[in-house]
Amino acid sequence: MRIGFVGLGKMGANMVQRLIAGGHEVVVHDRSQDAMTAAAGQGAEAADSLHALVQRLPERKAVWIMIPAGPPVLETVEALLELLGPNDILIDGGNSNWRETGKTAKRVHDRGLHFIDCGTSGGIWGLKEGYCLMVGGDEEPCRYLEPVFKTLAPENGYLRAGSSGAGHFVKMVHNGIEYGMMQAYAEGFDIMNNSPFDIDLRAVSDVWQHGSVVRSWLLELAARALKEDPDLSQLEPWVEDSGEGRWAVQAAIDFDTPAPVITHSLFARFQSRQKDSFAMRLLAALRNQFGGHAVKNK
Amino acid sequence: MRIGFVGLGKMGANMVQRLIAGGHEVVVHDRSQDAMTAAAGQGAEAADSLHALVQRLPERKAVWIMIPAGPPVLETVEALLELLGPNDILIDGGNSNWRETGKTAKRVHDRGLHFIDCGTSGGIWGLKEGYCLMVGGDEEPCRYLEPVFKTLAPENGYLRAGSSGAGHFVKMVHNGIEYGMMQAYAEGFDIMNNSPFDIDLRAVSDVWQHGSVVRSWLLELAARALKEDPDLSQLEPWVEDSGEGRWAVQAAIDFDTPAPVITHSLFARFQSRQKDSFAMRLLAALRNQFGGHAVKNK
Repeated sequence: MRIGFVGLGKMGANMVQRLIAGGHEVVVHDRSQDAMTAAAGQGAEAADSLHALVQRLPERKAVWIMIPAGPPVLETVEALLELLGPNDILIDGGNSNWRETGKTAKRVHDRGLHFIDCGTSGGIWGLKEGYCLMVGGDEEPCRYLEPVFKTLAPENGYLRAGSSGAGHFVKMVHNGIEYGMMQAYAEGFDIMNNSPFDIDLRAVSDVWQHGSVVRSWLLELAARALKEDPDLSQLEPWVEDSGEGRWAVQAAIDFDTPAPVITHSLFARFQSRQKDSFAMRLLAALRNQFGGHAVKNK
Repeated sequence: MRIGFVGLGKMGANMVQRLIAGGHEVVVHDRSQDAMTAAAGQGAEAADSLHALVQRLPERKAVWIMIPAGPPVLETVEALLELLGPNDILIDGGNSNWRETGKTAKRVHDRGLHFIDCGTSGGIWGLKEGYCLMVGGDEEPCRYLEPVFKTLAPENGYLRAGSSGAGHFVKMVHNGIEYGMMQAYAEGFDIMNNSPFDIDLRAVSDVWQHGSVVRSWLLELAARALKEDPDLSQLEPWVEDSGEGRWAVQAAIDFDTPAPVITHSLFARFQSRQKDSFAMRLLAALRNQFGGHAVKNK
């Protein structure tokens, strides 16, 4: 089908490529002229503005938004609401907060358009392997867009998870689980690295992929990273988080659900970014106060 | 090759079957006559005693021990030490504590025999898919036993991780990671289960296997479990642990390595087995003491 696509970042550019390879016609827009030129070189039609993009779409217009969550998505939705008409479809394929998505969907529905939230997993590997898609929204527009979902996803890799917000909600939980799994591997490899044995971590990450209980795609990526840099000496121990882990912990709290592992995975990332922890200075001060224990002065 | 095999439990019986299918001659012994009869029916030679087993082995004798860690392993090693001679090989394929393994290996080496510790992963699926083997011990006996390791493991699924104890150590870390991964999935599915959306957890576990970042063998097993019993209503929320998680946490402590996720995965299991938590009664009592907050009296 013919679809509009806004946002040609790491994810978006690859998704457009996969859509074109799957036989779809994609009209793209991005703030970056370079990104548009690159997409045009791969068969997309570049549009200089949202207005120009919408004009090139067929009667029932569908626009996929693939940009950072928060204000950028909300502003783009607002702008597109002015350009689209009843029955048209907006898809937010990014990592928006599911509660925000519920509000955005209501706003779009109130104007007579459809809104679909789509959690998109697969990272930079999705171009080749397909993206796992978790979709929320009304049944009719989801069914209408199935050709697009099916091209982006590998076989059986697309699910309508429920009503508006369900797609982003399931993707958020997915990312929370991802945090926990990554942290479990990280801790295990750290224990091996600090052990008295001279363990070849790269070899372990390789062998575990064959018949072990912990084999996974993330383990394959660990093996890849350890192959490129066996002691990861090129990296700072600094880990960012992009919001979904926080929202997953918040959801756990909202639903009275214990989630210690997901929570600690998130907190471990916060800790990784503390260069001069006040909490650790306070701990040191307290040990010194009550027991006269040695501290390290700056 | 021709090898002795002691212990025909869930793991052992399948491993013997895989060895026989791979062309090896296996002389087996187990306390259970039924288990021996079953193994004999699949081509193993049953021996009524360790003495009888050893007698049927060739000049250089290798005996694989696949029984519960702790006293059973230690007693079997002692008994076999009386029956075997210099250069013979004992293999402990179970989940022994790596520190115990170090001591056992020393004891066996002091008698002029070889000791190999082999961490074996794959569970009941290993028969079909092969077992991931993590091996510790001297190079020569490990090389000598390679035909056996290669039959038990899938392709590239066998690693000599290092000196004595390294095999069980790496397997212990593997199990610690396994605890963390399982707990991450458990928490994520619980958050979805408690959410306002009516999410089909079975469908989610299915779709995540196709292109998502959290795809793994454990997720396949989750999908399988949810297919058999979509709300897991047939199960008590009671989770056992078999020691390796505890030792992994102990190792993390010994090596000053933070491992919050592995630790919390272990503690979550302890919590699952508390029917009448004293800690929670104390928390309730304290809230009542300082704030007059309501408690539930028995």
